[in-house]
Amino acid sequence: MSARIEHKSSRPRRDRLYEIIFEADTPAGKWFDLMLIVLVLLSVLTVMLDSVASIHAQHGRGLLALEWCFTILFTIDYILRLLCVGRPLRYAVSFFGLVDLLAIIPTYLSPLIYASRYLSVVRILRVLRIFRILKLGKHTKEAGVLRAALYASRRRIVVFLCFVLTLVVIIGSLMYLIEGPANSGFTSIPQSVYWAIVTLTTVGYGDISPQTPLGQFLASIVMVLGYSIIAVPTGIVTVEWSQATMRKQTPARTCPTCGAGGHDIDARYCKFCGADL
Amino acid sequence: MSARIEHKSSRPRRDRLYEIIFEADTPAGKWFDLMLIVLVLLSVLTVMLDSVASIHAQHGRGLLALEWCFTILFTIDYILRLLCVGRPLRYAVSFFGLVDLLAIIPTYLSPLIYASRYLSVVRILRVLRIFRILKLGKHTKEAGVLRAALYASRRRIVVFLCFVLTLVVIIGSLMYLIEGPANSGFTSIPQSVYWAIVTLTTVGYGDISPQTPLGQFLASIVMVLGYSIIAVPTGIVTVEWSQATMRKQTPARTCPTCGAGGHDIDARYCKFCGADL
Amino acid sequence: MSARIEHKSSRPRRDRLYEIIFEADTPAGKWFDLMLIVLVLLSVLTVMLDSVASIHAQHGRGLLALEWCFTILFTIDYILRLLCVGRPLRYAVSFFGLVDLLAIIPTYLSPLIYASRYLSVVRILRVLRIFRILKLGKHTKEAGVLRAALYASRRRIVVFLCFVLTLVVIIGSLMYLIEGPANSGFTSIPQSVYWAIVTLTTVGYGDISPQTPLGQFLASIVMVLGYSIIAVPTGIVTVEWSQATMRKQTPARTCPTCGAGGHDIDARYCKFCGADL
Amino acid sequence: MSARIEHKSSRPRRDRLYEIIFEADTPAGKWFDLMLIVLVLLSVLTVMLDSVASIHAQHGRGLLALEWCFTILFTIDYILRLLCVGRPLRYAVSFFGLVDLLAIIPTYLSPLIYASRYLSVVRILRVLRIFRILKLGKHTKEAGVLRAALYASRRRIVVFLCFVLTLVVIIGSLMYLIEGPANSGFTSIPQSVYWAIVTLTTVGYGDISPQTPLGQFLASIVMVLGYSIIAVPTGIVTVEWSQATMRKQTPARTCPTCGAGGHDIDARYCKFCGADL
Repeated sequence: MSARIEHKSSRPRRDRLYEIIFEADTPAGKWFDLMLIVLVLLSVLTVMLDSVASIHAQHGRGLLALEWCFTILFTIDYILRLLCVGRPLRYAVSFFGLVDLLAIIPTYLSPLIYASRYLSVVRILRVLRIFRILKLGKHTKEAGVLRAALYASRRRIVVFLCFVLTLVVIIGSLMYLIEGPANSGFTSIPQSVYWAIVTLTTVGYGDISPQTPLGQFLASIVMVLGYSIIAVPTGIVTVEWSQATMRKQTPARTCPTCGAGGHDIDARYCKFCGADL
Repeated sequence: MSARIEHKSSRPRRDRLYEIIFEADTPAGKWFDLMLIVLVLLSVLTVMLDSVASIHAQHGRGLLALEWCFTILFTIDYILRLLCVGRPLRYAVSFFGLVDLLAIIPTYLSPLIYASRYLSVVRILRVLRIFRILKLGKHTKEAGVLRAALYASRRRIVVFLCFVLTLVVIIGSLMYLIEGPANSGFTSIPQSVYWAIVTLTTVGYGDISPQTPLGQFLASIVMVLGYSIIAVPTGIVTVEWSQATMRKQTPARTCPTCGAGGHDIDARYCKFCGADL
Repeated sequence: MSARIEHKSSRPRRDRLYEIIFEADTPAGKWFDLMLIVLVLLSVLTVMLDSVASIHAQHGRGLLALEWCFTILFTIDYILRLLCVGRPLRYAVSFFGLVDLLAIIPTYLSPLIYASRYLSVVRILRVLRIFRILKLGKHTKEAGVLRAALYASRRRIVVFLCFVLTLVVIIGSLMYLIEGPANSGFTSIPQSVYWAIVTLTTVGYGDISPQTPLGQFLASIVMVLGYSIIAVPTGIVTVEWSQATMRKQTPARTCPTCGAGGHDIDARYCKFCGADL
Repeated sequence: MSARIEHKSSRPRRDRLYEIIFEADTPAGKWFDLMLIVLVLLSVLTVMLDSVASIHAQHGRGLLALEWCFTILFTIDYILRLLCVGRPLRYAVSFFGLVDLLAIIPTYLSPLIYASRYLSVVRILRVLRIFRILKLGKHTKEAGVLRAALYASRRRIVVFLCFVLTLVVIIGSLMYLIEGPANSGFTSIPQSVYWAIVTLTTVGYGDISPQTPLGQFLASIVMVLGYSIIAVPTGIVTVEWSQATMRKQTPARTCPTCGAGGHDIDARYCKFCGADL
């Protein structure tokens, strides 16, 4: 952001390329962004389809060619971005700069390490940028409120995760002792801890499940516990969110005459003493 | 709605048929609506039962006859609606007009495409109209509040869904790389993305489940993540809802001087013109 | 309740038996209630254990004898209640009167219909009465708030359930058409609707799961939908609850001098004009 | 806490050892705590890895030696704590004193009862203490708010759990009668109650699932019920939390005349004595 502002002031007649690639105010910029989002989604689809054995067998060569086309296009885009931006290094180490780089590396590594090419799906993260660039003003604000709510409740979330971790380790160990000998699923404590997480989060695959009455009894307690404490993160975020929204609505305006607060954002007169705000 | 109002003004002595079919103020209109809702539920039940192999083998002919009876009745109802309504075209392209048409088409197509008849269950959507027509005033308002809350939080929901989509694509690809060779379930990236959705939403079928320690570790993170971010849509809707309800409750006080509304319950002076309330 | 009040006024020297059985103010009444709750839990445990094949084979006769003992005790209790209460008929048709009757009938029917004896677990509902009789004042109030919140949001819950019903019927039929021929699980529309409910509620047994790519795609949408709309009932109850709690806290007291409202429950002077409340 | 305060007053020149072990204000104390948390996590990891058959076969001896090292270190720590604290008995029976003792006992018992050693994972609870000792002031307050919210809603949670217990016993018994003869899963009422809990909490393992149409119909109702009443604990905690947070935010205004606090933000007169605020 600051790089861009500086760029504006240092070079008043802005580069047309910069406008097209980094901004979305002009028709050309909008078309460029729209094209890019479509290319990103298509290229992710290409990688995904290529991983399906039957499709790979039939269209493997075509998909590989397509993937290289996309990668070369994204490489050109990356180089152009580096060239036209004011401070290339700052861009290169920014979140989206790194995503742009990570989006092309896996394909170039694929001749060496074959599996690496599937990592190129990480380029779907570019969709998030397009999202911001498209000036979906409102959406960005929403994302901001969400981020703020999550940030404000980070400590509560840490407390909650510590509690959950302690819980699943102890429950997993108990279940290993109870079910271990009788059940083929609870083969070790890590495996039992995995089961405890699957159960506590109410996912419940069923690949490992208790067989002894005591194990089923303990599992029942874990389920009711998981079902109940799901309330905790919900409560955390809801309360934060609620307050963040309210705070936005009621700025701390006080009446210069009587000193009363709690005025609405659109109030022009104090609602208690009638003085001009 | 507007079609009906116009109809009222243009033809003062309203058609009795229109009253019976479209309104529910008269006893005849109420009976007609009640009968229709029973017929809709019975016809959906007929189609559902006919899809059960053992019942189809024994009562297939009878159920087919029943289905045709229902379809003919609904066709007559549809034609009558077109005839007695003021603007037939406006009705035909309205939501309920389309539902009424879709409710009868599948059966008529069934001699050509056999499976199409099962699509006639779409007529269960007619139940929603009966619901409105029955003048369940309060219920309609509730549905309105719900719709308003969902509409007000549409941007947050879009942000949330984009985030979830990005997450499952990246997690799915990682799991394909980790579990792919060792596990018979993670055969392709789309399949792994499907598994990621099943896990993140805490559904957890268990038809595909990680077997390697690293896969189980990543799966555990996905589960705790899914368990936690379930809070986000809940928070979104709860907050919206809460505000929508409160807004409704704030008594509509208007200023006697400037006529502005939206004053707080404890305001003594108009916040817009400063006059005494 | 009213039967009991009438009883008080009509017979001033109350029956000691009535006091012990129906009330919990005296030590004798408390001991009777406590004994009853233990007996109810023990008798339910007896029935549950007897249903386990291995335990039935070994201790079947003893458990049967125990069950008959409990049933005879509950029968005596029921007869005594009928004798000592003011209006026996009113008690007999009340919720707890019916529960008391249902608690003993299944055992008496068991010589005729063997399976009926398992229905005697319905006597666990008697625990709810003990709960009330034990004068857990606070707990009863909590249950009241909960009941009030659920009652206040009954219309929203009906709207929500109608929406869910419509959704699962349409999704189930679509999945039957998509997965039907290829998958052994989706054998009929009712079975597919059952699958849709299992998926939408995020239970996810996995006994039926989609196999075709299109089916898995539709299932993914259903899961995200289910994961999102779980917010709706949560939002409904939370908002209701929040308001019910707030309403309890701020009774509508208005100042007799200035007419302002919103005073706290413990306020003695108007917070706006300072007048005596 | 009080033991520590007394300790301070009785012995003004505090023991350096006490400072290092029990406090985290000095660099030495911080390093000691940090080292302890790492040791606890490493020792829990040792026990967990040792339970994996393949690792035990290869590195069993090394892990056993490591575990004894950790146990001896924790024993020394426990003895030092007893020696340097003011009131050893009060520490020994405190929550963290008991955890410290339980963290070392299982290993000493392992030569007698082999399985007991896995119980030593209970030492992960020591992590919670470190958490407090590390003076994560904010975090501790968060945990306090959470504890307060849970404590304030304890009665509602008891009511909710009683309701769930009654529900699963009755549903389990009904399912046993319906599915019992046809299905290999519902072998007894306790097993069916276990299934009811698995379903109601939306865990859904799928190891037991209904096969008959009537059983699937009842199961569908249980699922929708479970999906809906998950709202109740969420609502409980969210409302409590919201109020606890708001109470904390209400600025502590006190009346200059009578000294009473708890006035609303918009109050102009003391609500207890009527004086001007």
